[in-house]
Amino acid sequence: MDKNKVLELVKPKLTAARFAHTERVVETALELARLYDVNQEDTILAAALHDYAKYRDVNEMANIIKEHQLPLNLLSYHHELWHGPVASILIETELSIANEAVQSAIFWHTTGSEGMTELEKVIYLADYIEPGRDFAGIETVRKKAYEHLNEACFLAVRNTIQFLAGREYLIYPETLKMYNDLKRKLEETI
Amino acid sequence: MDKNKVLELVKPKLTAARFAHTERVVETALELARLYDVNQEDTILAAALHDYAKYRDVNEMANIIKEHQLPLNLLSYHHELWHGPVASILIETELSIANEAVQSAIFWHTTGSEGMTELEKVIYLADYIEPGRDFAGIETVRKKAYEHLNEACFLAVRNTIQFLAGREYLIYPETLKMYNDLKRKLEETI
Repeated sequence: MDKNKVLELVKPKLTAARFAHTERVVETALELARLYDVNQEDTILAAALHDYAKYRDVNEMANIIKEHQLPLNLLSYHHELWHGPVASILIETELSIANEAVQSAIFWHTTGSEGMTELEKVIYLADYIEPGRDFAGIETVRKKAYEHLNEACFLAVRNTIQFLAGREYLIYPETLKMYNDLKRKLEETI
Repeated sequence: MDKNKVLELVKPKLTAARFAHTERVVETALELARLYDVNQEDTILAAALHDYAKYRDVNEMANIIKEHQLPLNLLSYHHELWHGPVASILIETELSIANEAVQSAIFWHTTGSEGMTELEKVIYLADYIEPGRDFAGIETVRKKAYEHLNEACFLAVRNTIQFLAGREYLIYPETLKMYNDLKRKLEETI
C-alpha cells in the first residue's frame, strides 16, 4: 500500500496543520518500524490514519462508543481520548480497512495500554516524538526511541502521567496500566 | 477509649522513631477529625494503629494477604503497600478490634482508594502532613488540610503520583482511582 494513497484518504478529514503532523508521524513510524522489524504496510496504515476521527463531532463519537461496544468508561474521561477508539471503528465502516493489528494501534495511540504490541508501541511513540513535537524532556525520549522501544515508551508514558498530574487532569486507567506494565518488563530485562 | 491506652498497644511493635511519628499522626488526625466532624474514638484507633504491621516480616504479610482474601494484586506491588491491609486484619485477630470503619481507614492509609470515607481521608492526610514530614510541597497541603478535606487529599495524592512517576516506581491502581475520584468530586463542587 503506497503511503501517499493512504494519506489521501485522511487528508480531507484533517486541518492542514494536523495533516502535516500526520505526515511526520508516518515518516517517524516507518523509521521505528524498520529498526524494530514491524510490518511496514501496517505501520503506514496505522500512522496515516491514527487521527482519522480527530475532528469528529463529540456527540457522534459518543454514539459510536455506545453503539460499537467500545469501553463505556471513555465517556467519563476527556473527549480527547475518544478519537483513537472511534477511528478504529470508522476506518472499517468508512474505508473498509479491517485489520485488527492496525485498528488496535489506532485505538490505543493516545491512552496507551497494557501488553502493547510492537506496532502499537511504534505508533504511540511516533505520535509522541515526531519532529514537530516540542516540550520538556522530548529530546531524551526521541534519542531513546532509536535505542530501546520499551524504555522510550516508558519514558513517554511517565512524562505523560507527570504532565497530566501537574495540570490536575484526569488520567485514564489504561495509561497507568501501560506505565506499570512497561516498568515491570524493564525490570525483568535488567 | 483513651488515646494513650491505644498507643501502648502499638508501642512494642514500632521503632522509637516510628512511634513518635504515630503519636504525631494521632494529634494531627484529632485536629482534622474535630474540624470535619469525624468520630473521635474511631480516629484515635485508626491513627494510633495505622502502622501496627509496619515491621512485620514480608513473608508473614504475604501469607496474611493470601489467607485473608486481601487483594492479591498487592503482591505484585512493593511490600511497602502491604502493611496497611495486613494491619486491618491483625488489629482484629491480635487486638480484638473489630471496627469496620477503623479497619478500612488503616487498610487504605498508604494507597488511598476510590470513594474514601471522611475517616479514611483524615487518616490518609494526617499521615501525610504530620509535623515530622518535610518534603517539597508539604506546606501547601498542610495549609489546605485545615481548609478543605477533599482538596487537601487531592493535592496529597497528586504529589504522590508525581513523586512515584518521577522515581519510576510502580503506582498502585487504587492510588490513581483516588486521584480521579477526588478530581471529579472537586469539579462537581465548582
